[in-house]
Amino acid sequence: MTPMTTTSALATLTECIAPQLAAVDRRFREELTSDLACVNNLVKHVSRFRGKMLRPMLVLLSGRACGNGELNDAHVTIATVVEMVHMATLVHDDVLDEAELRRKGATINHLRGNEAAVLLGDYLISHSYHLCSSLDSQLASRVIARTTNQVCEGELLQIDNRNNLDLDEETYVEIITRKTAVLCATCCLLGAMFGGASESQIAALETYGRCLGIAFQIQDDILDIVGDADTVGKTLGIDIEKQKMTLPVIHFLRTAPPEHRKLLRSLIASREADKIDRIRNLILPSESIEYARNRARQLVDKARSALSVLPETEARRVLDTMAEFVVTRPM
Amino acid sequence: MTPMTTTSALATLTECIAPQLAAVDRRFREELTSDLACVNNLVKHVSRFRGKMLRPMLVLLSGRACGNGELNDAHVTIATVVEMVHMATLVHDDVLDEAELRRKGATINHLRGNEAAVLLGDYLISHSYHLCSSLDSQLASRVIARTTNQVCEGELLQIDNRNNLDLDEETYVEIITRKTAVLCATCCLLGAMFGGASESQIAALETYGRCLGIAFQIQDDILDIVGDADTVGKTLGIDIEKQKMTLPVIHFLRTAPPEHRKLLRSLIASREADKIDRIRNLILPSESIEYARNRARQLVDKARSALSVLPETEARRVLDTMAEFVVTRPM
Repeated sequence: MTPMTTTSALATLTECIAPQLAAVDRRFREELTSDLACVNNLVKHVSRFRGKMLRPMLVLLSGRACGNGELNDAHVTIATVVEMVHMATLVHDDVLDEAELRRKGATINHLRGNEAAVLLGDYLISHSYHLCSSLDSQLASRVIARTTNQVCEGELLQIDNRNNLDLDEETYVEIITRKTAVLCATCCLLGAMFGGASESQIAALETYGRCLGIAFQIQDDILDIVGDADTVGKTLGIDIEKQKMTLPVIHFLRTAPPEHRKLLRSLIASREADKIDRIRNLILPSESIEYARNRARQLVDKARSALSVLPETEARRVLDTMAEFVVTRPM
Repeated sequence: MTPMTTTSALATLTECIAPQLAAVDRRFREELTSDLACVNNLVKHVSRFRGKMLRPMLVLLSGRACGNGELNDAHVTIATVVEMVHMATLVHDDVLDEAELRRKGATINHLRGNEAAVLLGDYLISHSYHLCSSLDSQLASRVIARTTNQVCEGELLQIDNRNNLDLDEETYVEIITRKTAVLCATCCLLGAMFGGASESQIAALETYGRCLGIAFQIQDDILDIVGDADTVGKTLGIDIEKQKMTLPVIHFLRTAPPEHRKLLRSLIASREADKIDRIRNLILPSESIEYARNRARQLVDKARSALSVLPETEARRVLDTMAEFVVTRPM
């Protein structure tokens, strides 16, 4: 399946929230419009790299799956806010990763320098809070800010463990939970809350979002090793290059034969030109990719079963299918 | 006057807000405390570079200068928020400037890499919004986020004009207004609003803060050229090095004899080791430093006269003296 078909498959699935997704798109552009031409030029640039709107979908579908199933203007605002938060983390991640490719377009830092990337990320995060504070209550602002606190912590914990070849799986899960999964959980939680959901529905959707997010990140880790750059559409081997520990690597260093572990350790530390290929060739025949796939699968199953407290609606079916997509997606 | 005496002079002046400044210090540390050791280590590091608390002072003194003159808990929260916002811009500025010295301590990016600096700035800004959203109303959150929008725009406009030797004074003022002055204006505005000020008092204090901020930045520009690194306590000549246009340079390029202008233009573009010294030697004997000093003086006078609508209180007197400090400070 190519990225295009994934996107169109999602588009077909998300018909029940199509008008709201279009509204998110408009609000995104409106909020970022400045009276300064130089700002608009930079923002226009990042808009070309907009993604699959996964996080806005989570907000809107969670809203639809609860209460009377109707979406209100606050849902559109929150869905726009989470997309901006996500875009900000992508832009700053590019500074951190020094990635040359992101979503098959040149990255901001590559085109305009790290300075513009830092500032564009700051501009996005500032506008996300600005938009969020237009809501009547402080509730969403407080939850969003608590979430971004944790995203930063996850990133810092990751950097702190970058050269740590002894990183255990528990800490790894802690990193990706804060870095990725908490924002997904927040999308579902706020979508549900602003949809008049019951306490148990809110808790179920938060669990769904968190499990989905962890599974998503594990799948990203897997693709960083097994993926094909043309299909995935971004620079591969970055995690390895930056000595970020991923689940297949952690498992391999715990379970592979001692000689293999020793080789992987020396390859990770080396500066050889073909190190990424050699690491792939070492890990691919092992059980470590399969182990990571199984962990992702378990999380997807947990996410799906959390949905059972919700009434049977189109939105719930779409959430169910989206969870399945996470472990089958090629990008 | 050494920096130390400036700081102690300010400390004597700000006795009327001393308990609240101490509370800001506590709240700052509480808000940034994490359950992760690696985060706390990084935050501890930045705490050593805390500044003169100018922005919290503006919030607290503005609150004291209005209404019944009493400060409430919201003032302490807002004062902490603006200090965090300011710290975040300092940390990200260091990434942008690649400054080797900041407040006589090593900068974050120098010690821990650009990555840690980007994330620490993000962590600070996220916690500033988090703390702000703990207030009952969205008012402060909305104003703070609008302010940070403008700070980002100011920085982007500055980068956009970095190599622009034809930058006019109007655009220069636009840059420093958004980059620096708007936050000072917001400090005064929110301090007044949460102190039950009248419309005209709020407007007057906002004017005071904006003029003070512009004057402050012009003085920074002057010190970048005439200052002494040991006294100022940070790397000098950075603006020149990064081809940021400052007011003395803009004035010089508009008014100096044609041969001098031509020489400055070629020096700015050159990569000679002694270029900063040569630029200083060229600008110092001209009228351009004096011109910039006069502009700063006019703004300080405007800031001080805006205070006249306020009742005569100790807080008003301190605000008045702070404005005077801006153009006399050596750092």
